[in-house]
Order: sequence, then structure tokens, then C-alpha cells
Amino acid sequence: MSTVERSDLARITAFTDGVMAVAITLLVLSIEVPKVPDGDLPGQLDDLILPVLAYALAFTLVGRFWVIHHRLFEDLERFDGRLMALNLLFLGLVALLPFSTDLMSTYDEVPEAAAVFATSIALVSLTHWAMARYSAQRGFLNPEHEFAQPVGLGFAAVFLASIPVAYVDTTLAQLMWIAGAFLHYPLRRVAGRGSETSP
Amino acid sequence: MSTVERSDLARITAFTDGVMAVAITLLVLSIEVPKVPDGDLPGQLDDLILPVLAYALAFTLVGRFWVIHHRLFEDLERFDGRLMALNLLFLGLVALLPFSTDLMSTYDEVPEAAAVFATSIALVSLTHWAMARYSAQRGFLNPEHEFAQPVGLGFAAVFLASIPVAYVDTTLAQLMWIAGAFLHYPLRRVAGRGSETSP
Amino acid sequence: MSTVERSDLARITAFTDGVMAVAITLLVLSIEVPKVPDGDLPGQLDDLILPVLAYALAFTLVGRFWVIHHRLFEDLERFDGRLMALNLLFLGLVALLPFSTDLMSTYDEVPEAAAVFATSIALVSLTHWAMARYSAQRGFLNPEHEFAQPVGLGFAAVFLASIPVAYVDTTLAQLMWIAGAFLHYPLRRVAGRGSETSP
Amino acid sequence: MSTVERSDLARITAFTDGVMAVAITLLVLSIEVPKVPDGDLPGQLDDLILPVLAYALAFTLVGRFWVIHHRLFEDLERFDGRLMALNLLFLGLVALLPFSTDLMSTYDEVPEAAAVFATSIALVSLTHWAMARYSAQRGFLNPEHEFAQPVGLGFAAVFLASIPVAYVDTTLAQLMWIAGAFLHYPLRRVAGRGSETSP
Repeated sequence: MSTVERSDLARITAFTDGVMAVAITLLVLSIEVPKVPDGDLPGQLDDLILPVLAYALAFTLVGRFWVIHHRLFEDLERFDGRLMALNLLFLGLVALLPFSTDLMSTYDEVPEAAAVFATSIALVSLTHWAMARYSAQRGFLNPEHEFAQPVGLGFAAVFLASIPVAYVDTTLAQLMWIAGAFLHYPLRRVAGRGSETSP
Repeated sequence: MSTVERSDLARITAFTDGVMAVAITLLVLSIEVPKVPDGDLPGQLDDLILPVLAYALAFTLVGRFWVIHHRLFEDLERFDGRLMALNLLFLGLVALLPFSTDLMSTYDEVPEAAAVFATSIALVSLTHWAMARYSAQRGFLNPEHEFAQPVGLGFAAVFLASIPVAYVDTTLAQLMWIAGAFLHYPLRRVAGRGSETSP
Repeated sequence: MSTVERSDLARITAFTDGVMAVAITLLVLSIEVPKVPDGDLPGQLDDLILPVLAYALAFTLVGRFWVIHHRLFEDLERFDGRLMALNLLFLGLVALLPFSTDLMSTYDEVPEAAAVFATSIALVSLTHWAMARYSAQRGFLNPEHEFAQPVGLGFAAVFLASIPVAYVDTTLAQLMWIAGAFLHYPLRRVAGRGSETSP
Repeated sequence: MSTVERSDLARITAFTDGVMAVAITLLVLSIEVPKVPDGDLPGQLDDLILPVLAYALAFTLVGRFWVIHHRLFEDLERFDGRLMALNLLFLGLVALLPFSTDLMSTYDEVPEAAAVFATSIALVSLTHWAMARYSAQRGFLNPEHEFAQPVGLGFAAVFLASIPVAYVDTTLAQLMWIAGAFLHYPLRRVAGRGSETSP
């Protein structure tokens, strides 16, 4: 398959947006309505705080993945079969997040569950970084595009680093994730530019 | 991130519509098919009336949120990172509604469940109001746009006011919600204009 | 709210398509994977035939509703608040079909479940007919649009007529639904035209 | 219904993309979060490997169906009612895959479950082939379109051939599916062209 022109990207982008919109909305399925007698509900509501926070974190992360995907594709001028395959891999990993969020939120004190979630996020992040890098190398990007490599790898690094931390203290790993979701602001200043093509 | 032009809003709008379309359709999952022997089904159908009414109310509310979001974005001429963050917050709160509708419909006589639902709706409403206000202040809106502040705050007020009411009588709070879903008509007359940018 | 022009219909159409695409795909949730020991699965597969047929029928019906909605909106030149409200009612009834299909398929021999399903389909059909009629009366349609009233009412009539039949024999009602899904071909010939704006 | 022109295809394509985006994302529902005490989770994670692999296989297959559907519709210049009916059949079979993937993944050692999955994939593939063939025969395609018949039938053949194999050894059938997902590369070379209109 040879490269295709920008006009052809519209349907690929629409399909990508569709998958991400469904995946981000399915995150809500990880918050389960308790099945208890009416009188016991008030006592159960505390148990919903953690799933709601997990939902908020995962929603923020998928939202940021959508933003950075959007920025990369805006500057794409051409496409090839390999980039389409990377994009499908990216979508397959994003669509897995309702599962890994549910697992992490159900077993919030189990390091293995934290490791699955952190690995999921790191893989999405690395796949996006690979798409950005490949597009830059093949000359598919608009010359004005800024490729923010240190930010991209930094984001993946935080989530990978949280894995050994989770085996010591899962709460500490969770705090690293929350910090990670806001990471790009300080790093962006270090890198001295406004782009966040790769988180 | 600097402001972006109208042409760039198309993909943001498409993603927003996708999330709202999925969230509004997932509301149906709050109506559960009973698991009883065939002969007992007729006696169980009465128990479905309340979940169907809860679905109808939530569908109407999300439908109205979609309409007012649509009207705001139609008149947007520019966008910035903060408005995009507010839009993601808005979507995250909308995508939570299948959960809070299910909770409220399963525990229709428990004030805490009513409070969670009413708070959800009030937060969506306030976030929309914040988006409309921020866009107006930053001059992002088409000069013909009418910013209907009293209606927006009135809508949030009804749902917040229903919370203490639910602790007295949950049915009364539910009646306030139904009235709230149709609130804008009289208020619109008070405000003396046709716009309903903010519900 | 005054009438809006055709250009503005694009986002309404996109939202409608989104809701219908999600609703038609959620129909699959009515087919449940049995939970039995491995050795017992072959004996259970027969029990999946009926849910698969129910899925096929509901998918065909929603597919046809999408086609006729598509044809009506293609010829719309203007829109007003009341038509938008009717469209939301149409979507709310379509989005209910994953529930009523699941109910009908789980309780295939219970007349009450058949009645809920048939009523759902009849209401979607009547709401579409009301949209088509209202659009014609208000002059919103392209002059070339053909308003196929007898077909629309005929479709609703078949599903409403199946309700008393279901109380005599649910299988007979199911056969009427299958016939109904293909009804428009003969009726179209009676009406002497090719349009199927209203099913 | 007479044939319609290319401009009219946009909404059909958007609806098709919507259904495929929802179906591909619902595949994740076949991976269930285990319900065990915290301490038992690590021992249960091995049981998640197979569902994750099944998800990856099904995601790859639906992703490839999307790509080939995209290529066919890109070259479509006209459309008729029969092609629209075939497209709805294609979508109905794709939307069934979350169920057949779940069944195959839950009962990975049961030949009947493998047969249901393989039949599902073969039917999607044959329906796509029928759409491509019908479009070519009716002259609906852009003259530059290459109709890759041997590849299309080869893909269906692999999945149909895996059914008797599954009754001997389900693992062998699973290996055939993985090979099948990458089949087109060698076959494409045999056929001596770059097109993959029909997988």
C-alpha cells in the first residue's frame, strides 16, 4: 500500500474519534451500582469514592490521549499502511482501558492490578510516541509540526516507574499517576516550547 | 497553547457528539431485564415503570445538554486550552450520568441516591455555564450570541435545591426534576429572550 | 426558537446517527454467553438460536428506521424546536430497543414481553410518521419529497395488531413481526410509488 | 429505489463507521474482571492472558474489515437498495462479534464455540466479498478499483477450514486464525497486486 493523501485521512480520523469516544464513555462501567437493601446504601457510598476517582483519572488520561492524537493528525499530510497499523494498535490499547481501569479500581490495593493499569497507559503512550516518530522520519508531517520527544518519553517513564513503586505502596503509585496526568506542564517548560504532540 | 480557529473546532465537536451519543444510549443499561420464571414476569412489569421513567428523565436532560452545547459551539469562533479542558470536564460529567441514573433509579426512595443524581446534573449544568461565561469573557463568541445567564443558574439551582428536599421526601425531589427539565420555558419568558445557551 | 437552515442540520444528523449506531450495536448485549461447564456448552447452543433470531429481527428493524430517517432528513430544508424535540423522542425510543429486545428474547413465550416489544416498535414508527407529517405540514421538505403515509401507518398497524395476537399465540405474533419487517414491498406497490419515507 | 450518487454515500459511510467503532470497542467486554479476594488476584491473572489474546485477535480482524470496507467505499461511485441491504447484513454480522468472541474466549477448548467464532468471521468476510462483487458487476466502482477476488475467498476459506480442525484440536484452529489475520500478505504476492479490497 502506497502513501495516501490528506483528503483520505478524514475517514480514518472519524473512525479513531469514534473508537476513542466509545472507550472513554465505557470507563463509567467500572463504577458499579451496589446491590444492597435500601437502608445500607448510605454506608456503601464511601466505597464509591475510589471508583469515581479512578474513573476521573482514566477519563483525564484518555482525554489527553485524544488531544495529542488530534494534534498529531492535524499536522499529518500523508499516511501509509504501517502508520495505519500503528494507529489500530493505539486504538486497540485505548479500547482496553475500560478493562484495566476496572481491574485497578476493583483491586486498588493489589500491586499486580496497578501494574496492569500502568503498563496499559505506558503502552498507549509509547505507541503514540512511535506514531509521532515514524511520521516525522517518513516526512509525513507538516514542516511546522514540533515533535516533543522528551515529553513523550517522560510520560511513559512515569507510568513505568510507578510499577515497582506499586509493589512497595499502591497509594504512592496512584499519586504518581495523578502527578503524571499533569506532568506535561513543568516538562513543557523544561523543553522550552508549547507543543505537546507526544505526552 | 494559543487559541485555535473555528475550522479546528470540527473534530472537537465530533468527539463531543460521539461521547454524548454513547452516554445517552448507555442510559438504557439502567433498565434491567428481570430474571424470574416466565409465569412471574407479568407481576414484575410494574417494577419497570420507575426505571423507564428515570431513563426518560435522564434522556431528556442529556438531550437538552446536547442542544445547549450545540448552540454554544455554533457561535464559538475561537477556542483555547482552558476551554478544551472545561469541555473534557463537561464530557466526563455527562459520561457519569449512566451510573448516577442507575443509582437513583435502583434506590428511588433513598435520599443519598437522589443527592448523587441531582449533584451530577447540577455539575454538568454549572460546567456548561462556566464554558459559556468563559467564552463570552474571552471574546470567543460570535457577537450575535446571547448569553442567557439567569436561565443557566436557575437550572443548576433547581437541582441543588432538590437535595435537601430529597431528605424530606424523595418523590417531591423527583417532581422538582421533572419540572426542572421543562424549566427554561417560563424562565425564558422572564428573561425576555429566545436564547437557551445555558439551561 | 425560530427555524434553522439546512447547514445547521449536519450536527443534528451526526448526533442522530451516533445514537442509532450505538443503539443498534448494543442489541448484541441481549445474546448472553451461557455460564456452564465446558462439557455442557454443546447442549446449550440450541438455546442461543432464539436470541440470535431476535437480534437479527431487531437489527433489521433499527436498520430500516435508520434508512427512513436518512431519507426524511435528506429532503429536510428547515428545522424548528418542535421537530428537534420529536427527533429526541424518536432517539429515546430507539435507544430503548436494546432493553425491549432483551426482554422479548428472554421471555419469548410471555405475551406481556411481546407486547412491550411490539409497543416499542410501534411508538418508534409513529414518532417517525409524526416527524414526516409535521415536516410536510410546515413546508420544511424539499418539494420533490414523497410523503408515503399509508406505508407508515401500515407498519405501526402490524405491530399494534400483533399485541392481542401475542395473548393467543406468541409464535404467531413473532411471525407477524418478521412479515412486518418486509411489509413495505407489497404496500409500496399498492401505494404505487417507490418512496418509503415512513415505514 | 434507484441508485444514488456518491454525495449521498457520506451519511451511509458515517453510520457504518459508527457501528464498527462501537462493535470493535465492545470487544473489551469479553475480558471479565475476576471477582476474588484481593490475595487471590495474582494467581488469577494467568487466566486473563487468553481473553486478552482473543481480544487482540478479534480487534485485528475487525480493524482489517474496517480497512477493506473503507477501500471498497472509497471507490464506490453509486449505490442501490440491494447494496445498502448487503451493507446492513455486513454490519449486523460485525456487531455480533462481541458475542462470538466472548463465547470463543470463555470456552477456548470447546470445538462448538470455536465453530461459532470461525463461522461469524467467515460470514463477515463472504458478505464483504458479495458487496465487492455486486458493486463490480453493477458498474458502481471507479474504473481504477482492483477487485481482489482470490484474496477474499482465501480469507473465508481459512476460517471455514478451521472448523473441522477445531473438532480435532482447538489450539490448532486458533493458530490458523492468527495465521489468517496475516494471510493477505503472502496471497497478495501470489495474486501479484497491492489491492486488498476483499481480505
